[in-house]
Amino acid sequence: MAKEALNNIRVFALGGVGEIGKNMYVVETDEDIVMLDAGLMFPEDDMLGVDIVIPDISYIVQNKDRFRAIILTHGHEDHIGALPYILRKVNVPVYGTKLTLGLVEDHLKEKGLHKKSDLRMIDRNSKMTVGNLPISFFHTNHSIPDSVGVVIESPQGLIVYTGDFKFDQRPVDGQFIDIDKLSQLGKKGVLCLLSDSTNAERPGITPSETTTGQGIKEVFQEAEGRIIVTTFASNIHRIQQVIDAAMKQNRKIAIVGHTMSKVIDIARQLGYLDSPDELFIDTEKVNELPSSEVTILCTGSQGEPMSALARMAKGAHRQITIEKGDTVIIAANPIPGNEKSVSRIIDFLYRIGAEVVYGERNVHASGHGSQEELMLMLNILKPDYFIPVHGEYRMQYAHGELAELVGVQREHIYLIEKGECIEFTDGKARQSGKVPSGNVLIDGLGVGDVGNIVLRDRRLLSEDGILVVVVTLSKKTKGIASGPDIISRGFVYVRESEELLQEANKRVSATLEKCMQENINEWSTLKSSIRDVLSRYLYEKTKRRPMILPIIMEV
Amino acid sequence: MAKEALNNIRVFALGGVGEIGKNMYVVETDEDIVMLDAGLMFPEDDMLGVDIVIPDISYIVQNKDRFRAIILTHGHEDHIGALPYILRKVNVPVYGTKLTLGLVEDHLKEKGLHKKSDLRMIDRNSKMTVGNLPISFFHTNHSIPDSVGVVIESPQGLIVYTGDFKFDQRPVDGQFIDIDKLSQLGKKGVLCLLSDSTNAERPGITPSETTTGQGIKEVFQEAEGRIIVTTFASNIHRIQQVIDAAMKQNRKIAIVGHTMSKVIDIARQLGYLDSPDELFIDTEKVNELPSSEVTILCTGSQGEPMSALARMAKGAHRQITIEKGDTVIIAANPIPGNEKSVSRIIDFLYRIGAEVVYGERNVHASGHGSQEELMLMLNILKPDYFIPVHGEYRMQYAHGELAELVGVQREHIYLIEKGECIEFTDGKARQSGKVPSGNVLIDGLGVGDVGNIVLRDRRLLSEDGILVVVVTLSKKTKGIASGPDIISRGFVYVRESEELLQEANKRVSATLEKCMQENINEWSTLKSSIRDVLSRYLYEKTKRRPMILPIIMEV
Repeated sequence: MAKEALNNIRVFALGGVGEIGKNMYVVETDEDIVMLDAGLMFPEDDMLGVDIVIPDISYIVQNKDRFRAIILTHGHEDHIGALPYILRKVNVPVYGTKLTLGLVEDHLKEKGLHKKSDLRMIDRNSKMTVGNLPISFFHTNHSIPDSVGVVIESPQGLIVYTGDFKFDQRPVDGQFIDIDKLSQLGKKGVLCLLSDSTNAERPGITPSETTTGQGIKEVFQEAEGRIIVTTFASNIHRIQQVIDAAMKQNRKIAIVGHTMSKVIDIARQLGYLDSPDELFIDTEKVNELPSSEVTILCTGSQGEPMSALARMAKGAHRQITIEKGDTVIIAANPIPGNEKSVSRIIDFLYRIGAEVVYGERNVHASGHGSQEELMLMLNILKPDYFIPVHGEYRMQYAHGELAELVGVQREHIYLIEKGECIEFTDGKARQSGKVPSGNVLIDGLGVGDVGNIVLRDRRLLSEDGILVVVVTLSKKTKGIASGPDIISRGFVYVRESEELLQEANKRVSATLEKCMQENINEWSTLKSSIRDVLSRYLYEKTKRRPMILPIIMEV
Repeated sequence: MAKEALNNIRVFALGGVGEIGKNMYVVETDEDIVMLDAGLMFPEDDMLGVDIVIPDISYIVQNKDRFRAIILTHGHEDHIGALPYILRKVNVPVYGTKLTLGLVEDHLKEKGLHKKSDLRMIDRNSKMTVGNLPISFFHTNHSIPDSVGVVIESPQGLIVYTGDFKFDQRPVDGQFIDIDKLSQLGKKGVLCLLSDSTNAERPGITPSETTTGQGIKEVFQEAEGRIIVTTFASNIHRIQQVIDAAMKQNRKIAIVGHTMSKVIDIARQLGYLDSPDELFIDTEKVNELPSSEVTILCTGSQGEPMSALARMAKGAHRQITIEKGDTVIIAANPIPGNEKSVSRIIDFLYRIGAEVVYGERNVHASGHGSQEELMLMLNILKPDYFIPVHGEYRMQYAHGELAELVGVQREHIYLIEKGECIEFTDGKARQSGKVPSGNVLIDGLGVGDVGNIVLRDRRLLSEDGILVVVVTLSKKTKGIASGPDIISRGFVYVRESEELLQEANKRVSATLEKCMQENINEWSTLKSSIRDVLSRYLYEKTKRRPMILPIIMEV
């Protein structure tokens, strides 16, 4: 048995390739399955009404007897967000660093899964064995503290997963990426590397997180009124730099927004934020202090309409309203897809008369390494095989090109799609089939009960609305007992379209009567006749195609 | 009368400020109204099902006795697209350059308005009088040929509207922006300048259109397989550069996509494209030529799912399928809001195995001047008053800052919202009230019959779908004759949620029966009882809020 096990190692992604989000990578031997990260994704534009998206883990569920552990690299939603849904189906130990588990714990509490879960804390120097697989870690620089990469000592060689990383020459907490450990791994020989492709299209080097602190500090030095700062709640280093800037200018900080308060609480409790208690003030106290002594740290960096920032801007927040003279720092870049909503909130703030400082030039730096850093990682680890992960396909592609540039053999680079397996036998890789993979849509409490048909209906409904046509037939007379009544929603203003709807009604009546005369009584035929006559008429008059829902009742 | 007329000139925007799109600026005296540009806008995300958006022109309609002319600066949709809708309501002469009117004519033909319209061709050197207002033009550089700015000699001084412009030091057609004319205007004295703010946030200078040609040429030199190029159909200069590159490499060109063919036809007929007939081949011939002799010029630069590019990529085009070995040049940047769809098509092309070249670094340059160019314009014209137009509010704001930097008095800079009037009296400006303004939504043939309530319903429908509850009551028995029946669309998979829907049905029945027993017969009360019980139950079970539409019939 042990011999055979040596012959098969499979690596695949259940999420995180061909997309930004829901990172989930799997290393499988004949004896053990280990999952690396368990993230969620926010829905695409065409997933109407869907709240979040998680990977399809049916393969894991089918093979749960071999499923040993979930290992988390850091505490971002796209790496930990699917955890509650997965643990409900397969409850295995979850490994992560202190801050990562702190954030995970909070998630699990919300879903009532806290006590059932087996969370095991590791740090960058931990070594352990999961099933038969020795596993160790290395520290990385990323936009959340306590991020690690993972090293799996497979029988055929090292499999290294970077997690999210950049090489920050001036990290805010002074903790460099573990170059020494990485170079030892490189010397030892890496069988296969899975590395972060987010910025593979970007030339050069990603600026240090420290540069954003300088930008923030400058704004604090110049601003005279209140300063409102928004950023990703989990970007503890950036929040630390806001704290430092506020303290330097003798400003107090009020925290506004649920996620921001929660994450800061966790980070302070666990010792990831250096900040005296007296620095913080309650939201109610903001208006009692002179403007020059106030900082507000809030959620809303993505322009979310219900966020603290948006509500304060629109006067919809109970205590605080952003006013002329305030300076707003948006210390974040829009995530792809959020450009418009961010742009809208910036416009709104300018209209109020607030100063707005935003974007990459001053107060934001990416947490993902650019091309030079990705090549540096490849040069240090010198992997035999390379699987670019964490990115859209074109980022994987660009990352693959970089790998080739620095000497990885072209046929040893695998641009995998979700579910596609790379199988290692005697240290040689090949593509070997697919495991089931896909999106599981979560809408409210429903997990997977929304799919293509439901989404198609929502799309149709969203475009031209719906017309419901109800008619009651009489069993006795075989004729119409009541109706047809037409009710519309999301189609046209009824008052301005009375004539249209009256004529539509007439045509439906005529069609039904004709059917009756011809003794056509089958409901499905009646329904499709109603649908036909109505959709033809409405398209002719309006060039729209509302959903038409005929309902026949019988008395 | 004439005396009094001198005392009042009003300038306002019906569109184009606080937004990107539907540019429409108005200059009004007591005797005359002149409209500068008449553009459309593509709908925002929350305008579900809406096709296009045009400005509310009710003020113009109310004052049509003084409305003299529409003057167009160039042929882009956001400057000419509202024309058909406006001319239907107020038919005045339309002035534009040859290419602009060529494109307008085509639009009007499509709407059957061609023969009724009074199109009057001008060129950059035309001078004319509209009502009592002498009007002249100056040539500008922009991403469509034959663009002009407009000069109105008002009794109180010159009002200058730049249209869209950049200072291109190496224009593809050798036609520089009319600096000489501009500097004469500056010497004469400009009362008020309306200038393009699109790139007011961008430092430096926008690259010349010629640089994109170099990028394109390099790709043509290297590519061995077929080359597929997509760009904005109206970017004739870029298309010329594609033509030049193709000729140099002895490649033929096939044009795919309705708009692309149409615009190229018009441009060739009017002499704006230098291209021999034999260069072009029919789409059917593409597969007969060796790959190295083929160029395909197509629509789809914004990732539109039904465009030629998307269809060719997905194998849904009749004649052409993009394959491994093809090189695709996306010679355009995504318009804000289209980032995701462009990203999706790029990914798709990479997956097929095509080479993809895209974006600003190589094959695209903006048609709008950056900060240095905007300041140059201000320095040349030295306007007394300045109204930054053509942009989101934050771009207007940035443009206002630039104007102040180069010496325009702060209180002479007006960041106007739609409808806000700047009134000039004896050469002095002040803000003076508002004219009606807003969005008119066009959905199919309907102009303005979709508004907030309809959009709200579409949004609700799109999020969680709809449940229709039908019940027939008996007049005689005062009881339920048939039903309740529950039909849902876009809510859940019915098959997987049978239990939920059955229980919902039971609860509605129980509620109705209780009402009956208590002699509650009013339909509105019955309906709201149904709505209440159902929405409470469904929210509890699913955390969703579908639209609930109770329908009561009587027999």
